[in-house]
Amino acid sequence: MLEPDLVAQHRQELRRGTTSLACLALLAQQPDYGYNLLSRLAGLGLATEANTLYPLLRRLDKQGLLTFEWDTSDARPRKVYATSADGIALVDLLRTDWNLLTDALNRMEKP
Amino acid sequence: MLEPDLVAQHRQELRRGTTSLACLALLAQQPDYGYNLLSRLAGLGLATEANTLYPLLRRLDKQGLLTFEWDTSDARPRKVYATSADGIALVDLLRTDWNLLTDALNRMEKP
Repeated sequence: MLEPDLVAQHRQELRRGTTSLACLALLAQQPDYGYNLLSRLAGLGLATEANTLYPLLRRLDKQGLLTFEWDTSDARPRKVYATSADGIALVDLLRTDWNLLTDALNRMEKP
Repeated sequence: MLEPDLVAQHRQELRRGTTSLACLALLAQQPDYGYNLLSRLAGLGLATEANTLYPLLRRLDKQGLLTFEWDTSDARPRKVYATSADGIALVDLLRTDWNLLTDALNRMEKP
């Protein structure tokens, strides 16, 4: 009997790298607030917790893959994130990797 | 300018979950020695270091996703790994996740 915790752990490992890739790709299409990005990810079937997403956005910003500007039009200033040129270059590389991995998985017969 | 270390880190995150999935799928098709599995992974474009693969096989065995038997036909006994019924069930689940992730990535326009 497969333990639910074990399944969750393996699914999370498979998801981890994808969430970064999805954020960079989405914020290259359209800069956005973290809060809106949560809905855009969920709309793609990549639902992510806010307490996973916000640290990830800060990490990608520190790594120079995202940039942000303050939107001060509201009472409380909010960060609007966009993917940097480096981030866009990384998206291209990771998409290529993803396609190679998908080809490899498809070449293995189903057990 | 994208730092090579940063690229390597993101590629590795994207790869990590895939290697477990590939091992389980390959050992469900055909039980094998770790050493042979290295070549089978490499043949699929999923080249993996021996010092990454061996601990992973021990972890998957501890998790009940692989089983092994000793092959004592050589001077030095060797483990022959096979995917367990739980491992096969997990491969099915993770393949479904992978396909959902691939669909999500494909629905995002290229930046």
